[in-house]
Amino acid sequence: MIVGFIGLGGMGAGVARTLLKGGEYKLKVWNRSTGPVEALVAEGAEAAADPAEALDADVTLSMLSQDDVIEEVVVSSGALDLARNGVVHVNLSTVSVAFADRMERVHRERGLFYVAAPVLGRPDVAAAGQLNVMCAGAPEAVAKAMPILETFSKKVWPLGDEAKRANVVKIAANFALASMIETLGEAGALVDGHGVPPAALYEVMTNSVFASPAYKTYAGLIADKAFEPAGFKMPLGLKDVRLALAAGEAGGTPLPIASLLRDAFIEAIASGDGAKDWSALARGSFRRAGRSWG
Amino acid sequence: MIVGFIGLGGMGAGVARTLLKGGEYKLKVWNRSTGPVEALVAEGAEAAADPAEALDADVTLSMLSQDDVIEEVVVSSGALDLARNGVVHVNLSTVSVAFADRMERVHRERGLFYVAAPVLGRPDVAAAGQLNVMCAGAPEAVAKAMPILETFSKKVWPLGDEAKRANVVKIAANFALASMIETLGEAGALVDGHGVPPAALYEVMTNSVFASPAYKTYAGLIADKAFEPAGFKMPLGLKDVRLALAAGEAGGTPLPIASLLRDAFIEAIASGDGAKDWSALARGSFRRAGRSWG
Amino acid sequence: MIVGFIGLGGMGAGVARTLLKGGEYKLKVWNRSTGPVEALVAEGAEAAADPAEALDADVTLSMLSQDDVIEEVVVSSGALDLARNGVVHVNLSTVSVAFADRMERVHRERGLFYVAAPVLGRPDVAAAGQLNVMCAGAPEAVAKAMPILETFSKKVWPLGDEAKRANVVKIAANFALASMIETLGEAGALVDGHGVPPAALYEVMTNSVFASPAYKTYAGLIADKAFEPAGFKMPLGLKDVRLALAAGEAGGTPLPIASLLRDAFIEAIASGDGAKDWSALARGSFRRAGRSWG
Amino acid sequence: MIVGFIGLGGMGAGVARTLLKGGEYKLKVWNRSTGPVEALVAEGAEAAADPAEALDADVTLSMLSQDDVIEEVVVSSGALDLARNGVVHVNLSTVSVAFADRMERVHRERGLFYVAAPVLGRPDVAAAGQLNVMCAGAPEAVAKAMPILETFSKKVWPLGDEAKRANVVKIAANFALASMIETLGEAGALVDGHGVPPAALYEVMTNSVFASPAYKTYAGLIADKAFEPAGFKMPLGLKDVRLALAAGEAGGTPLPIASLLRDAFIEAIASGDGAKDWSALARGSFRRAGRSWG
Repeated sequence: MIVGFIGLGGMGAGVARTLLKGGEYKLKVWNRSTGPVEALVAEGAEAAADPAEALDADVTLSMLSQDDVIEEVVVSSGALDLARNGVVHVNLSTVSVAFADRMERVHRERGLFYVAAPVLGRPDVAAAGQLNVMCAGAPEAVAKAMPILETFSKKVWPLGDEAKRANVVKIAANFALASMIETLGEAGALVDGHGVPPAALYEVMTNSVFASPAYKTYAGLIADKAFEPAGFKMPLGLKDVRLALAAGEAGGTPLPIASLLRDAFIEAIASGDGAKDWSALARGSFRRAGRSWG
Repeated sequence: MIVGFIGLGGMGAGVARTLLKGGEYKLKVWNRSTGPVEALVAEGAEAAADPAEALDADVTLSMLSQDDVIEEVVVSSGALDLARNGVVHVNLSTVSVAFADRMERVHRERGLFYVAAPVLGRPDVAAAGQLNVMCAGAPEAVAKAMPILETFSKKVWPLGDEAKRANVVKIAANFALASMIETLGEAGALVDGHGVPPAALYEVMTNSVFASPAYKTYAGLIADKAFEPAGFKMPLGLKDVRLALAAGEAGGTPLPIASLLRDAFIEAIASGDGAKDWSALARGSFRRAGRSWG
Repeated sequence: MIVGFIGLGGMGAGVARTLLKGGEYKLKVWNRSTGPVEALVAEGAEAAADPAEALDADVTLSMLSQDDVIEEVVVSSGALDLARNGVVHVNLSTVSVAFADRMERVHRERGLFYVAAPVLGRPDVAAAGQLNVMCAGAPEAVAKAMPILETFSKKVWPLGDEAKRANVVKIAANFALASMIETLGEAGALVDGHGVPPAALYEVMTNSVFASPAYKTYAGLIADKAFEPAGFKMPLGLKDVRLALAAGEAGGTPLPIASLLRDAFIEAIASGDGAKDWSALARGSFRRAGRSWG
Repeated sequence: MIVGFIGLGGMGAGVARTLLKGGEYKLKVWNRSTGPVEALVAEGAEAAADPAEALDADVTLSMLSQDDVIEEVVVSSGALDLARNGVVHVNLSTVSVAFADRMERVHRERGLFYVAAPVLGRPDVAAAGQLNVMCAGAPEAVAKAMPILETFSKKVWPLGDEAKRANVVKIAANFALASMIETLGEAGALVDGHGVPPAALYEVMTNSVFASPAYKTYAGLIADKAFEPAGFKMPLGLKDVRLALAAGEAGGTPLPIASLLRDAFIEAIASGDGAKDWSALARGSFRRAGRSWG
């Protein structure tokens, strides 16, 4: 089975590499810059000359940064018009609910299949093949994609027939992560204001009621002030909160915490933290208290 | 060793019962209403005629609802003036940072010891002897209290010499719980607005990055609309957020999410949910979207 | 001098009528639906067959609801390509800062002039020729437009050479109006919660420190529960707050009150107030207090 | 008629001086520090040895900073127990709704009269005898106080029989002022982010829809960065927002903007602006945008 792959950033390369190591699929990979392509070719992948060639496959995965990049690379470029008949395009990217609807339509119009399969996990998790994948689309297309998704996932969560259902779940989960970061920041600054190191609070929390991977990871990053190098950059956090707000507005749902997070991200970037990991959002809680953290 | 116990509400009775079952301590219990006292006497405790008698002990635990109740029962009543010389008063209640400072002082002035030991866990956890206890106070007093605390705890977290340090950590942890509830509510309403049941989102979240006791418990309560009977009533949630805001202000720390939570609690109570569990805070996210939940 | 006019809604018709009454200009008017055109033709205007014909003029004013409508009517339709050489297009509409930049460019590319002239005032003020106009664009184009603007304005405020400068000022002023409405709502619900009629508060406010047209108008609408018919509909309020948030993000400025207003507008619309005047935002303050208002 | 006066700070001294100039009343003044007393004695007032002596009068006005100061000076000191029989105590201070209820009761219990008469205006307005006074209390007491209040007021607003009614109106008006300051700050930072001086925005606003004393005064202070000397210090702004939040909670009214303001005040003070005028709240909007203002 030939598997196309479009987009070899930190996350995409990790996923592609896991597929390659599995040995079951022939991979045709494309990326805007050629470095990551060459690296994967050295490990056994084939280079696709353009996105259209990567879509000349049985199943093609894409992992790109945002709506307009996908629109340009896959649709405006004409690649989709040249795609292999019946190809299943599995989009791993975090996109807006509106764009998921649009992608579903433009694929259907061309007799192609679109599956939304956004993932939960940072680059190290992707490289370890332990992502959580939210998945939605036409049942036959999902069935075809499933073995591939399972190769690099800890678990695939089926969420129904409409692509956007997977996206809104992913968007909601990412919103919950951002809220957790801001909450850890505020709670940490709160105890710090009374002389208690945030790490002492986090130790209690993450070894009791909040003993989960997300809390352990992010409380650790914040306590250690380990904001660089970024696993997930600040502007991506802002983008994801924007997706939540847009999905909320489209569904008539006010999201006061998401609104607050949007301002916090804009503040973080305006304050010079744009290249840091989004866990550095916590710095704002200290800054607003006239103190500094990291 | 004689252990006094003041306050036999849902949490206090659970703790006292665990101590009693352990069989190591002679318990002298007091409660404003006599029902809970009689129940424990039937299981082997001794009834104290008043708070002062409960403070005629080696170590006395108290578990009352809030600052002014403790002030009245323990201080204004004159009980502390009659307390056994050298008694260690271990306050399990969630109190304000300012009140912790005050309690430390009024005990010291009388040659008594004060240990702050607020607990994390709901009544069922208390009854199971599996609480997490945050603990701070003079080392010799903490050492004396420790074996007792360990009897009913999963883990005791030592947080230093000043009592208020345990309280601010407890307050911060409870703030994080309230923030989690509101976030689950907003995230649930967000996906619901696109036709996805909140339970589907919660299943992904609590089996991946958010796999922790708190998320599992509260996502379950919200998904099942199991807001009654209340394990922790709405006004207590408001009280705890108020404690966080007061501690924040005292330490010069703005807490935007806590501020938002305060309004959400006031709204919930004003909307008729005052007798429900604080997980019903999530109903507000649906109500503000013109929908209803439970 | 021939003056084109595109868009004869409540605001546009008022402005066009004032120009017509002045008698100095020959008006060529276009509107998507023909009713408003016929009404103005009956008063002496000439009907333009399409937007391009309205742009075959010395100066053309447009007053349309939002960015994409203008894009479609003026640009995508090809009208701008057929515009009279050197025409000054004066856009009275409230548009985004990004769209102002774009409009400036597409006009320049065609050798045309673009002047941003968003207005402050409700339909009755427009009909009375008493609008406040914020104006920015190339000096020679502004000079040509000025006598026309002055015909229907109480005052024209020159704001510089870049079109977007007028728009960001208009957006900021509208944000301040929305903030005022929400504040009047919260303040009114606050006193109502203690038995004082909001009107009593508003009377003090608007006859002392807040004695301004905006406060008098909106406090009156709220006190009288006069939310229908709408002078400015709720979704337009949401749109304007969205413009403020977008302009803020583009300039790196967090706007916490605007974020809060966005949620309040979404809540108002989701709660069934979408057809009401944006002053009905105040109903939310009462609803969140478990009460109702109007 | 003998008029007592307790509290000669910036506001109180201005009011007392206006009464003295009127020549109709014999003034007995008291202040904790003696400087302001001596100044007024030099202008014809009589010095009261203690608060009790100032309450040995027909009508006694008080203007103190906050609830607990009044409690201490007037009640705990025993002054009220020694007050002249039937004295009307007119409290000009901005106090909490709960404290107004308490004061009403402690006066009634002693056969004395309590009138709440909080004022709107800064020290210069007080000195000019142009305050707006909100007034509530028993009709006969209000009638007795009225001529005195009118001596130093532009207008006295009668608000009913219960003292707290005047206080909640004053608290709501001050909340609206704080909201206006924050809004001016955000709007100013918004246009500044696009190269437009805030003064240009404020000029449009305060000469059109927002042409009121409050907007002119505060927009001027912000545009001129005239934050010192303070007419109304930052911590007083925080106190007043706290009063609004407490009154809101007591009446079951969520106040999202007030909550946001509370955090903004805490941030301003934590950031070193505690000695500045509360108009410096606007600095936060620029600071959060990574810029500075004044």
